[in-house]
Amino acid sequence: MDTKSPARHFIYTDWILIETQFDPEQLHSRETLFTIGNGFLGTRGSFEEGYIRALPATFIHGVYNDVPVVYTELANCPDWLPLVVIINDERFRLNQGEILRYDRQLDLRQGLVSRSLRWRSPSGNTVDIHFERFASLADQHVLGQRCQITPLNFDGLIEVQASINGYPENQGFNHWEDLDQGKTDQGIWFHSRTRKSRIDIGMAAKMTISGVEASLQVNTAPGYPTLSASFLATSEQTVTIEKLVTVFTSQEIDAPVLAAQEKLAHLPDYAMLLNANQQAWDEVWQDSDIVIEGDSTAAFAVRYNLFQLLIAAPRHDDKVSIPAKTLSGFGYRGHVFWDTEIFILPFFTFTQPDLARNLLSYRYHTLDGARRKAIHSGYQGAMFAWESADTGDEVTPRWSLPNDFYGEDVRIWCRDREIHISADIPYAIWYYWQVTGDDQWMRDCGAEIVLDTAVFWGSRVEFNSQNERYEIRSVIGADEYHELVHNNTFTNRLVQWHLEKALIVYDWLHNNFPERAAELEKKLQLTLEMRSHWQDIISKIWIPYDSSTGLIEQYEGFFQLEDINLEEYEPRERSIQAILGIEATNKRQVLKQPDVLMLLYLMRESADYPYNQKALQANWDYYAPRTDITYGSSLGPAIHAILASDLGKSREAYERFMQAVMVDLEDSRGNTADGIHGASAGGIWQAVVFGFGGIQFKDSKPVANPHLPPGWTRLKFKLHWRGQWHEFDLRSQQITQEENNRGFILFAPQANSSSALSSPSLHNPDIRGVIFDLDGVLTDTAEYHYLAWQQLADEEGIPFNRQANEPLRGVSRRASLMLILGDRQYSEPEIQEMMERKNHYYVELIQTISPKDLLPGAIALLDELRQAGIKIAIGSASKNARMVVEGLGIADKVDAIADGYSVERPKPAPDLFLYAANQLGLEPQQCVVFEDAAAGIEAALAAGMWTVGLGPPERVGASHIVLPNLAGVKWAELQAKLSDVSKQKRLS
Amino acid sequence: MDTKSPARHFIYTDWILIETQFDPEQLHSRETLFTIGNGFLGTRGSFEEGYIRALPATFIHGVYNDVPVVYTELANCPDWLPLVVIINDERFRLNQGEILRYDRQLDLRQGLVSRSLRWRSPSGNTVDIHFERFASLADQHVLGQRCQITPLNFDGLIEVQASINGYPENQGFNHWEDLDQGKTDQGIWFHSRTRKSRIDIGMAAKMTISGVEASLQVNTAPGYPTLSASFLATSEQTVTIEKLVTVFTSQEIDAPVLAAQEKLAHLPDYAMLLNANQQAWDEVWQDSDIVIEGDSTAAFAVRYNLFQLLIAAPRHDDKVSIPAKTLSGFGYRGHVFWDTEIFILPFFTFTQPDLARNLLSYRYHTLDGARRKAIHSGYQGAMFAWESADTGDEVTPRWSLPNDFYGEDVRIWCRDREIHISADIPYAIWYYWQVTGDDQWMRDCGAEIVLDTAVFWGSRVEFNSQNERYEIRSVIGADEYHELVHNNTFTNRLVQWHLEKALIVYDWLHNNFPERAAELEKKLQLTLEMRSHWQDIISKIWIPYDSSTGLIEQYEGFFQLEDINLEEYEPRERSIQAILGIEATNKRQVLKQPDVLMLLYLMRESADYPYNQKALQANWDYYAPRTDITYGSSLGPAIHAILASDLGKSREAYERFMQAVMVDLEDSRGNTADGIHGASAGGIWQAVVFGFGGIQFKDSKPVANPHLPPGWTRLKFKLHWRGQWHEFDLRSQQITQEENNRGFILFAPQANSSSALSSPSLHNPDIRGVIFDLDGVLTDTAEYHYLAWQQLADEEGIPFNRQANEPLRGVSRRASLMLILGDRQYSEPEIQEMMERKNHYYVELIQTISPKDLLPGAIALLDELRQAGIKIAIGSASKNARMVVEGLGIADKVDAIADGYSVERPKPAPDLFLYAANQLGLEPQQCVVFEDAAAGIEAALAAGMWTVGLGPPERVGASHIVLPNLAGVKWAELQAKLSDVSKQKRLS
Repeated sequence: MDTKSPARHFIYTDWILIETQFDPEQLHSRETLFTIGNGFLGTRGSFEEGYIRALPATFIHGVYNDVPVVYTELANCPDWLPLVVIINDERFRLNQGEILRYDRQLDLRQGLVSRSLRWRSPSGNTVDIHFERFASLADQHVLGQRCQITPLNFDGLIEVQASINGYPENQGFNHWEDLDQGKTDQGIWFHSRTRKSRIDIGMAAKMTISGVEASLQVNTAPGYPTLSASFLATSEQTVTIEKLVTVFTSQEIDAPVLAAQEKLAHLPDYAMLLNANQQAWDEVWQDSDIVIEGDSTAAFAVRYNLFQLLIAAPRHDDKVSIPAKTLSGFGYRGHVFWDTEIFILPFFTFTQPDLARNLLSYRYHTLDGARRKAIHSGYQGAMFAWESADTGDEVTPRWSLPNDFYGEDVRIWCRDREIHISADIPYAIWYYWQVTGDDQWMRDCGAEIVLDTAVFWGSRVEFNSQNERYEIRSVIGADEYHELVHNNTFTNRLVQWHLEKALIVYDWLHNNFPERAAELEKKLQLTLEMRSHWQDIISKIWIPYDSSTGLIEQYEGFFQLEDINLEEYEPRERSIQAILGIEATNKRQVLKQPDVLMLLYLMRESADYPYNQKALQANWDYYAPRTDITYGSSLGPAIHAILASDLGKSREAYERFMQAVMVDLEDSRGNTADGIHGASAGGIWQAVVFGFGGIQFKDSKPVANPHLPPGWTRLKFKLHWRGQWHEFDLRSQQITQEENNRGFILFAPQANSSSALSSPSLHNPDIRGVIFDLDGVLTDTAEYHYLAWQQLADEEGIPFNRQANEPLRGVSRRASLMLILGDRQYSEPEIQEMMERKNHYYVELIQTISPKDLLPGAIALLDELRQAGIKIAIGSASKNARMVVEGLGIADKVDAIADGYSVERPKPAPDLFLYAANQLGLEPQQCVVFEDAAAGIEAALAAGMWTVGLGPPERVGASHIVLPNLAGVKWAELQAKLSDVSKQKRLS
Repeated sequence: MDTKSPARHFIYTDWILIETQFDPEQLHSRETLFTIGNGFLGTRGSFEEGYIRALPATFIHGVYNDVPVVYTELANCPDWLPLVVIINDERFRLNQGEILRYDRQLDLRQGLVSRSLRWRSPSGNTVDIHFERFASLADQHVLGQRCQITPLNFDGLIEVQASINGYPENQGFNHWEDLDQGKTDQGIWFHSRTRKSRIDIGMAAKMTISGVEASLQVNTAPGYPTLSASFLATSEQTVTIEKLVTVFTSQEIDAPVLAAQEKLAHLPDYAMLLNANQQAWDEVWQDSDIVIEGDSTAAFAVRYNLFQLLIAAPRHDDKVSIPAKTLSGFGYRGHVFWDTEIFILPFFTFTQPDLARNLLSYRYHTLDGARRKAIHSGYQGAMFAWESADTGDEVTPRWSLPNDFYGEDVRIWCRDREIHISADIPYAIWYYWQVTGDDQWMRDCGAEIVLDTAVFWGSRVEFNSQNERYEIRSVIGADEYHELVHNNTFTNRLVQWHLEKALIVYDWLHNNFPERAAELEKKLQLTLEMRSHWQDIISKIWIPYDSSTGLIEQYEGFFQLEDINLEEYEPRERSIQAILGIEATNKRQVLKQPDVLMLLYLMRESADYPYNQKALQANWDYYAPRTDITYGSSLGPAIHAILASDLGKSREAYERFMQAVMVDLEDSRGNTADGIHGASAGGIWQAVVFGFGGIQFKDSKPVANPHLPPGWTRLKFKLHWRGQWHEFDLRSQQITQEENNRGFILFAPQANSSSALSSPSLHNPDIRGVIFDLDGVLTDTAEYHYLAWQQLADEEGIPFNRQANEPLRGVSRRASLMLILGDRQYSEPEIQEMMERKNHYYVELIQTISPKDLLPGAIALLDELRQAGIKIAIGSASKNARMVVEGLGIADKVDAIADGYSVERPKPAPDLFLYAANQLGLEPQQCVVFEDAAAGIEAALAAGMWTVGLGPPERVGASHIVLPNLAGVKWAELQAKLSDVSKQKRLS
């Protein structure tokens, strides 16, 4: 794993994102990644205790407020997170003291963010702190937080301050005017209002403390109401703080403060709320989940992207939509683009159609804004804003202003010229209607949008009498590298398609709902002449398509531009526009994102003009190499993945797909700090379902024509199509299709092909990774364990010595204790206490671990392995493994850590090593395990891995190779030995 | 007085601005007006307890931070004011409960803002609260606040929260990142840092409470550290809270937090600090005060303007300067313009030369920014920024962006074209040098500025070979209504003048400081060719001047523009540009501010080309009527006042002067909320000294040639000229001049001409105002007094009845009590208690006063007086007069109130009525007093006023006219009667 990659401190399980180390450099991107939400609000994953230059944010759908230059933005709302812990007058925070343990998780199954820390204060007080938070999907006005504090080496005074921060900010700007705050029987409340848009927010919060006697106080500093509690904490005893927050705005209810207070007064406890939240999530995942097997990174990453879309989709509000950066960051100011309709919407249309309808209804409610834009631009009908907010008026900034005193003002032309949005929205409406059959919504809302945007096009096209054709001049197409073009094929064809559909919609409405048709005819002035005009445009608009080659010119004159060879600019970490400048880029045949190919993708489903296999091949060959797919628009990769898959380019398809699916998890464009790439997330669903799943709609039902990427053994998802659910369970290679009697479409499961738990395959071993047990292999923490057990045994009066310690090697804490206790009877609480006591001794002992505690030969071998490109993991049953690795100073040399938190079943179960291999992205047979314990060797063999046993043969003799220890061990020699072993096995 | 005028709730004494009523509509302009400061920081007059949409601000010189569009701005610093008072769980604030009494004062003598309130909480608890604050001029890092709380009708729990608000904002934008806060033995501390400019601020605060036992608590909510105290307050007992704050930034000291903590730890108490502050102010006023007699409004207003300049001038820092809006508001973002050098500087040069040097040194320290601007603009030398901040780089915004979605972006051209600033600064330097003789500064700093800006001009002028002349094209002159002009005479002549002086400075430096000359020659590349080039420009630059008429064309082609008659646009409340639009204004002969006249003003002192009397007259006659002097630039009126005074147009001179001097006190341009008009304030000093005082410099000393405005009987000020102080004491009419042996120039005082305390003059009375006693005249509060006294007397067992009440009419509270007590002996505390008790009863009784309590005839007479244009004042000894006037519903009909707070000596002393007349701006003999009490008649007569006695002749027979009451009284008839009386007196 590249040490520069920001994802190196991540572990992905099926459902859980685990961050294993705190890196201040990644603060802002991680705040984005750990965003939670419930369709009402989104809250970035900032720390409860704050951090210097952190960017905490809670965005509530529709809560926009005015701001210079960009007109309006989603206002960062009062922050419900602050929870400050002060230990003997030392404030807990990560930039002071020492972080002895760190683990942050986002559980996608229930939208729960948790963080477990062991922290030593500057003066030496060590404490375990566990935080949790969730935004309830069961009740969108409810937010929950839990904090558990366990002093480890002291008794002392702990103060907890739980606040609402009424001074939230958008890049320094506070959109709120604080109206009031106060106390209630339940706790505190807060009332604030956006300055220009006059939206009120009401919040209320209460705090409960269990595990200790605490005195609660309320402070009502203006804008910063705080519940604080002080208590005397006792070493090893856990105190639990629960903070529940309710939030309403005047968008949902007249008196939001009262509503927040009343809701708070009747809330059940944290555990019940969390349970209700989980049930709500279960239902959502039931329909929206995608199961991928054989590619654990992709499996998690796809779920992660879907999760980010699910938390951003409004569930109870159809006047708002999903912004380009969802509700997870400040990028694009919460403005809504075509990203929603073209990239994000299909996921909802096919798995959560009610939410899709909400999203499209936003465009219906903002039609008046689109009409104002048309009037101000000198056109008729509805001209949708390129960037849209609460009113639908155009909010694309006109200028990108320089940061320095003498820089250039850069004019942003999208508001004026990127007009294809007014065909994109009808396109999305048409497919929503086709997929759902929602005639009622089409009658009430959809038709008016489709028809009034058609009116706009009728006024926007120009007739070129010389060439007897309609043209659309002065536009920006999908490709934004060219800012002033004429007759962009993408735009022209989409307008033609739109007008065709508008006439169909008109006829349908006329035939089925004549009253509504008459109403709209009058309101939109849909005359016969206008419809004839549309027909005329359809037949005469210029679509430059060379049917002999299938090649389509992106716009009039594109082929005359200077050509480019993008490979000449590699390696690079910036976009071509950043390298060449705006003007020079404008003049070359280089694309920011697919344009002709985007058109072909949009026509692919219907195989409509100009889509055909020849055109796809010809245009792919021409445009793909000229597209800045790595650092241009993030909208591109998922679309390229689908088309590459269609063309049988499975390697490239997978590469593009991974580029899209990891864009935020790996922060590969460096701007995850600004928020989740929502369009990319939506594109991923399309890439999986339409690309790899190859879903097409034939004979009124969806049919799969899968091209699973190499390694994918299973792909499973559901689609809702015209009132019925269709379930797809696709396996690699042999695929059969059956329809079961419940109306589901199933692909018969293929027999398990791989043999994860069998021995390594018997050809020349292809070793790519090494997994080291920690205790007894890299270091002698076994000695510390022994000392800790010895102290416990002495205190309990149980005979124990070094010899008795031998069988404990590589054995879990509980199992070790059982061995020590023998036949002695203890209650479970007593056992728990002893385990904690021993661990407490052990943790104290290992605080002092340093690089000199590495066993002889360890560092040399680690370095040699890294030189050889072999990946390295730690596979230790210890829950303290991370701390030990840090103390040893080898964290930089290790690509992954599997520890006592990673899996449930201890060695000799193979789980821990399988987990480690997965983290390394390797197959079991590509891994060698170094172990000093019998249980460890057994586990490694069960995992199907190669094994090197360290120690006496009577202990580790089951391993492939036995060595006394690591001293003098050379990787090259070991490789040779393993090769010999492999040959022997093959011959045997 | 116009009821629409925002100044109607103001009283001006010699030194004190008194605001008698809280008007939420004026919130922001009053915050500006009550700004205090000490040359280090300025703090707007916001309320301690906050108010909805208040704009509290503390600006510290030099603390700029980045901001979009306008590049950088003075950051609003953490707010030291918050002091919240909570009474039995009800938070004191002016938008809730009732304000029973309100009085806010700014004492210019010591920069002390105080506020006295009586407030009744929503649940009926009534409390007196008195606030005070000052920013110490004796120690610029020290700020003091005092709050005194007296419950009036309850015992109860009072909580006080004294905070530092770490979330200050500039129009919503918070420039700070909160670093830390905490407790000390002394109280709280706070540490913050500007986000981009990385300036640290450290603050510390402590709170002491006297008069009660109180428990102090500290809350360290992030960014909002708070000292809070709760105590049981007892009715009628005063609790005093003192809050002391210290503040440092990393601009002065490395560890500002530590410095703030240490300074706080060693501070003396509030009283001692206030005393030191007052002493420091005494010294400043000693040199900078201007005394005006005969025009109390002007007398106060001039002092007010000087005060605002004095608090804005950096005393210990020469790297900063005074922004256009001083440190009192957000307007112009704390940017520095030519306002400072041309308008403000002379006040300091002549009265505080050390501060003038600080201000000019700012330009020296920002020379590198000016050089960067020159390079980026394609020129050489130093091209000063039109708007300048910390670095001297150009920070004029390029755009004025629209607030609506489809509005126009307006390009601001000043940064590119308003280049005369690079001659204005040398102009100011030249005169600073001439006046102070500060050769050392000239050598070290001034010369480099003068010469390097000359280098700039050498590169900026263009030679027109056709006409054999130098031209300066594409500029904006002083008049900003014309945005793209060529050969603006103001600019061209100032450049010529500048180059002349540059050559002189060069020679002087060469002769006196050859090393420094050599250094600058090298650094600035001052070759012989360059100096010849300057000489060539001087002789050939185009200055269009018609010597036959004296008329100067503002710029090439100005006379060809469409002419305008500004009178056709009257009445108006907007600028001509706002009425006609930018383009149309550009095309007409209308000026935003003097341009040719400004040039003549700048050349007036030296009577330098093209200044002469004929040119002044001709250009005044042409340009003055074409100048938008009311709503154009606020820089104009003071200059016009001076020139009008020179031309003998004393009425117009005074009108323009008052327009300038009242611009903020009356908020006549509607933008005082944005901050004090600093340039106007500086222009006022010049208007008084150079205009009305007619100071000129002859024979190496300043000589007065005064033209005092009508009514001014005395004008007194000091000037520092070449190391000596010159004191001017100018009297109206006869003026003689003597030089005393201390080197002072004195004008012999003229004998008092007016006879303020004598009887009205014995010609036909010119009645302009009526002063009404309240009790017994307009209403019968005498009845309420009687009832209150009766209750007190009953409680004390003293016989009392209506008859005994008669002698109490018009008598002060104490005197009344003495009359009731008779010979009975009481201690002073007992007397105090009885007075307060009686007042308490009385206040309770008069809460219910309403318009129906007006006595018969009162309202009719008031209305008739207003119709007749007669001014109306209340002259009542009662401290509750305002409350009664409000209750009666006649506040709108009254122009001034003199009450129990206004003067010290009670009736029958004349003071109260003289005070009232002064408020009305009238002479005593222009006033009639309506009184029902003998003491009142006596007071009015002593004041030299006409009197109308209401009641039996035995009580009011001393008055000029006796009437039973106001019923049926007609003003016209009264006037006739007074005329008769006057004639009788004349005849007698």
